Amino acid sequence: MNFTGAHILSINQFQREDVDRVFAVADQMEPYALRKRVTRVLEGAILGNMFFEASTRTRVSFGSAFNLLGGEVRETAGFENSALVKGESLQDTARVLSGFSDVICMRHPEAGSVADFATASRVPVINGGDGANEHPTQALLDLYTIRKELADKGRSVDGMSIAMIGDLRHGRTVHSLGKLLSLYDEVHVVLISPAELALPESIIESMRSAGVEVTVSHEMTQSLADVDIVYSTRIQEERFSTKQEADLYRGKFRLNQAIYTEYCQPNTVIMHPLPRDSRADANELDIDLDDNPNLAIFRQTDNGLLVRMALFALVLDVADKVDEFSHEVHWYNSRQRPIKS
Amino acid sequence: MNFTGAHILSINQFQREDVDRVFAVADQMEPYALRKRVTRVLEGAILGNMFFEASTRTRVSFGSAFNLLGGEVRETAGFENSALVKGESLQDTARVLSGFSDVICMRHPEAGSVADFATASRVPVINGGDGANEHPTQALLDLYTIRKELADKGRSVDGMSIAMIGDLRHGRTVHSLGKLLSLYDEVHVVLISPAELALPESIIESMRSAGVEVTVSHEMTQSLADVDIVYSTRIQEERFSTKQEADLYRGKFRLNQAIYTEYCQPNTVIMHPLPRDSRADANELDIDLDDNPNLAIFRQTDNGLLVRMALFALVLDVADKVDEFSHEVHWYNSRQRPIKS
Amino acid sequence: MNFTGAHILSINQFQREDVDRVFAVADQMEPYALRKRVTRVLEGAILGNMFFEASTRTRVSFGSAFNLLGGEVRETAGFENSALVKGESLQDTARVLSGFSDVICMRHPEAGSVADFATASRVPVINGGDGANEHPTQALLDLYTIRKELADKGRSVDGMSIAMIGDLRHGRTVHSLGKLLSLYDEVHVVLISPAELALPESIIESMRSAGVEVTVSHEMTQSLADVDIVYSTRIQEERFSTKQEADLYRGKFRLNQAIYTEYCQPNTVIMHPLPRDSRADANELDIDLDDNPNLAIFRQTDNGLLVRMALFALVLDVADKVDEFSHEVHWYNSRQRPIKS
Repeated sequence: MNFTGAHILSINQFQREDVDRVFAVADQMEPYALRKRVTRVLEGAILGNMFFEASTRTRVSFGSAFNLLGGEVRETAGFENSALVKGESLQDTARVLSGFSDVICMRHPEAGSVADFATASRVPVINGGDGANEHPTQALLDLYTIRKELADKGRSVDGMSIAMIGDLRHGRTVHSLGKLLSLYDEVHVVLISPAELALPESIIESMRSAGVEVTVSHEMTQSLADVDIVYSTRIQEERFSTKQEADLYRGKFRLNQAIYTEYCQPNTVIMHPLPRDSRADANELDIDLDDNPNLAIFRQTDNGLLVRMALFALVLDVADKVDEFSHEVHWYNSRQRPIKS
Repeated sequence: MNFTGAHILSINQFQREDVDRVFAVADQMEPYALRKRVTRVLEGAILGNMFFEASTRTRVSFGSAFNLLGGEVRETAGFENSALVKGESLQDTARVLSGFSDVICMRHPEAGSVADFATASRVPVINGGDGANEHPTQALLDLYTIRKELADKGRSVDGMSIAMIGDLRHGRTVHSLGKLLSLYDEVHVVLISPAELALPESIIESMRSAGVEVTVSHEMTQSLADVDIVYSTRIQEERFSTKQEADLYRGKFRLNQAIYTEYCQPNTVIMHPLPRDSRADANELDIDLDDNPNLAIFRQTDNGLLVRMALFALVLDVADKVDEFSHEVHWYNSRQRPIKS
Repeated sequence: MNFTGAHILSINQFQREDVDRVFAVADQMEPYALRKRVTRVLEGAILGNMFFEASTRTRVSFGSAFNLLGGEVRETAGFENSALVKGESLQDTARVLSGFSDVICMRHPEAGSVADFATASRVPVINGGDGANEHPTQALLDLYTIRKELADKGRSVDGMSIAMIGDLRHGRTVHSLGKLLSLYDEVHVVLISPAELALPESIIESMRSAGVEVTVSHEMTQSLADVDIVYSTRIQEERFSTKQEADLYRGKFRLNQAIYTEYCQPNTVIMHPLPRDSRADANELDIDLDDNPNLAIFRQTDNGLLVRMALFALVLDVADKVDEFSHEVHWYNSRQRPIKS
């Protein structure tokens, strides 16, 4: 794919070489995200960070990524959707807003809305999540994290195995990651969920026809034995038809240190798209895992910054100029402190 | 008028030479808005973008205009009006907030509020809309668009004719534009509205005594024959006392390509303050006009950026320094892409 | 205290030498806040301005302070607390958000929340107010104002007397200021409130054991005779058990120019944490005081900018580099206009 000036709307746009290109640029962004250096390559550029649905962390992640490249951010945080309320079409909104910035990141509650918006935008649009449909930067940061965590252990995405746990039916994160993994060779995916929340058959078929080995399970612990990655997601009680049904599953898909120690290989990486629900009746990833060095959930969000910086750099065609416009950091850098759990 | 350090509260402040000055500076801003160059003339300056009423597009337009000049933006988007709720006067709010920025843009639902605020502000205040009262930058961008569109056709504002259509009674946009047109010679204004929504008699009187030729009509199509500009606005059903009454007018003031072809002169310019309501029961400007090159509605919002940049540059007295602090653009510039409809 | 990389959570962290250090840096910030010069020392740095509770003026003050040092601001304004609603712990939120910025300012409605957040943050956290608990920058700006106002009259905080008026029971501002004053010598504090709203005994004890002379009064006018500073706060009717009870006090703790003239020494400084309630049934500081040059309430908020700039500069260790990265101001500077009342 030619990234320059392109809209980033769906992971379906990505071939393996495109993913490799994004990840190579993301690697290059690390010194800037870690504050070893500052770059001003996008000085004067403006991001329109249009969140027509609230999401503090994703919004701030996109905004900070743009700031880290030297650009400015104008934004909306989801609560003043006045023109749309007055009957304005998404295309009109796009024609107007795309005159105010150099690139737009957009989140919107309706599936397909971001693509509709992009058809009328004069500047590149990056999908920050459109309802149940797509959230491509989340899938890319997940895969980037998998690649990095495995590389630290001398392994690669090709040939790896991953358990996906929880609500696999509704989670767009899991759907998109599944598609991305289809670009790799000899991947084994273990799907662990209640039957009601199984991954849609069409996605399973698509993965299998791309050469992914898919195993389906309704039980967690035994299925964790041979995976490199455990990718946990939230099970929402309201997804079940009765509370009794929910109670049957409650607790069967929760991971904690004791289960990890008993069932997982040492160094199995633990991931989660966040936020994790730490209330007692949810608690899909127990906080007693916080001291486990294989808990990668906060490295995921840190990686999100790198991946988003990379996409901005590629779409605006400055990946090769980032270093040229860089200078040293003048302030005390606490950014490299380890995460305290 | 001496723009330096001035509040911009009302179009009544503007003489023709003032309008000319704003438009000359707006012309000068075009290469920066189109991203042919970047200027950093306001590097370090802060805009307080105080929207005590939500308006995404106007807020982002002001903010982007300030960013395009190199400045920073601090803002409020209308939902956390806590101090005012606690009984603080607008003057106190102004005394406080004017310590935090170099210029303030303010929108507020109450007529007169922005002028009240300005009396106590230590920095220049630009009115971003105060209820039904004034929205001077909208009127200026409308006139700037008219001037530019006509100039492309070898004509000028002097001697032109314009049809204003829709709810002329409540639309502050139309009121302000009417006043501004009074500064020009031999202008002919055709007012087209239901009788209930006619332009207030006082404004008509004022225009006539300034030399504007005013024609009043309650019918649209025949009135479009000889105008250079069609300025359409929204008719809101709730303005009528009964639904039956609204139904009488429904559809009589809608413009589409077929009507345009049949009744308008070729090259008649179509304008609208936006947002246009594209729902079936409103639809004052049909989307089948989107391919008509004379549809100027998105050029209007683009011009808004230029006019707002010009006002900031004039009020902060940097109009002559914009080029001095400029440099080339380092990123891929898609800003000049044509609007896709 | 070593400020570099430190969290600023409570005024209990401050010894007198720490306060002196903050105030010395705040003095140094004045030319930048008054726009005599621009500094870019924090160019490329990002503040995460995380207001999980709305407060326009405090949020904008922190954001502008960071902009005045050359940094960027990413923020949330209190209305989209989605991850916390989904059961995410404050520690998880901190682990995520601290990856997106170089320093965080946080406000949150729950007492203790900011300290909880800070335990898991990888970057310094400044408390912007945590419920009824602490608002350390307010206390510091109050004390900075007292010091400056007295210095203008050739006096110092040591040996000064201050009357605190209003709801002394619930006002965290007054509690924190009381603690800070305990760091000074021979201070006399006159506490003026209805009995129901008296300063908690524990704070009085603590002040007395630190050497502060404390006088308690339930009557205002006679108690104003010998103080250097009158610090007025709001009395909220809802604090009383019955409306009759509230009526007993209504008006007894309101200061206006007539009372000032009759009871106060000339040049007694008038302060208030703002916002002041200017509605007729509140009106704790009458607007007829606005022309009194000793009314320091807007100098307080201006000083807040200096104190917040100082804290950022200290925590990020750039206090000594601010001048090095400075340049002249290119735009018209109206920032030094006197406050119009």
